[in-house]
Amino acid sequence: MDASYRRSMINSLAGFRQAVLVGTISDQGVTNVAIFNSLIHLGANPPLFGLISRPDSVSRDTLRNILNTGYYTLNFVSTDMAQIAHQTSARYDVSEFEALKLQQFYSENFLAPFIQDAVVKIGLKFEEKLDITINGTVMIIGSIDRIIVHDDIICNDGFMDLSRLNVLVSCGLDAYYSVNPISRFAYAKPTHMATKLDFN
Amino acid sequence: MDASYRRSMINSLAGFRQAVLVGTISDQGVTNVAIFNSLIHLGANPPLFGLISRPDSVSRDTLRNILNTGYYTLNFVSTDMAQIAHQTSARYDVSEFEALKLQQFYSENFLAPFIQDAVVKIGLKFEEKLDITINGTVMIIGSIDRIIVHDDIICNDGFMDLSRLNVLVSCGLDAYYSVNPISRFAYAKPTHMATKLDFN
Repeated sequence: MDASYRRSMINSLAGFRQAVLVGTISDQGVTNVAIFNSLIHLGANPPLFGLISRPDSVSRDTLRNILNTGYYTLNFVSTDMAQIAHQTSARYDVSEFEALKLQQFYSENFLAPFIQDAVVKIGLKFEEKLDITINGTVMIIGSIDRIIVHDDIICNDGFMDLSRLNVLVSCGLDAYYSVNPISRFAYAKPTHMATKLDFN
Repeated sequence: MDASYRRSMINSLAGFRQAVLVGTISDQGVTNVAIFNSLIHLGANPPLFGLISRPDSVSRDTLRNILNTGYYTLNFVSTDMAQIAHQTSARYDVSEFEALKLQQFYSENFLAPFIQDAVVKIGLKFEEKLDITINGTVMIIGSIDRIIVHDDIICNDGFMDLSRLNVLVSCGLDAYYSVNPISRFAYAKPTHMATKLDFN
């Protein structure tokens, strides 16, 4: 198995994942957008998300900006932006906002740029870098500072049905998908099968 | 915001994720299945996957079994098993294989049980437990020992199109989705927009 074949196979075997465009700004004021597919929910209280970064990849600009400024944005886009989302993985010499004509959006008292057309915008404050020494990757841990989404995707219990926004999902290094809801289920107890719940 | 509302919201904000049933066996021979949605691709060479576990959750049996035996399985199921997949999150006193009438599958020279009906079966060897001290969670890191999938989902370049298997995807704590392919794209270069590729 050659290295490229192996990389494609192993990456796709990790399954479907949220496509996330990470927005940052350098301490010289140069903005950056890079696609990640390694968003991790670490906990709700405090609200912590992780991202995996390889020091040797395109995402090194993102990592450096986060470490230097302490703030970054997560942007989920709809499926009609699949090609632009993928294109942020190219090694541009200029800001991806400029190269790809992405409009910036700034939220009050928040340093890092959001993507105006993103359907979900999450502002994160850097908390910790965790070294994964076994293969030289790092986990960037951040706490949620703010969330900007349309109210009408929020269900009665706080659940957000992102499928209403036609959010882009990825698999492997270059494949993109949309999602369709099947069902929600009640909290599972050993006495009986959990009943189906509506998305409302 | 009460704790339950907040938990639902933050969990769903982490986006769409692969639903994974983790199969383990205790050193007394009691099997276990638990659903996770925190599968992380850490690297292709060596092929390493991570899983996030909370010591206080149902998944504590899974964590203990992995630490004691050194082996575990990742099982992706199709959407018609959504309810059973969710139901593995109940706190059963007996094996979920027994309680939910899931058939076990054992691969030669591999200790941990697979789910017979899983459409993707990955056997992992435990490598390392990483403490995420900021909130008391742990990352279980394992290397891929074996992969059991149908050949016909493997594309020419090694990419596996899991959507052909109608693989179950989750969001938040209790919502399940299916996926539809949009496109693959060529490796992105700054000189031009990446072209669309077929899934073959």
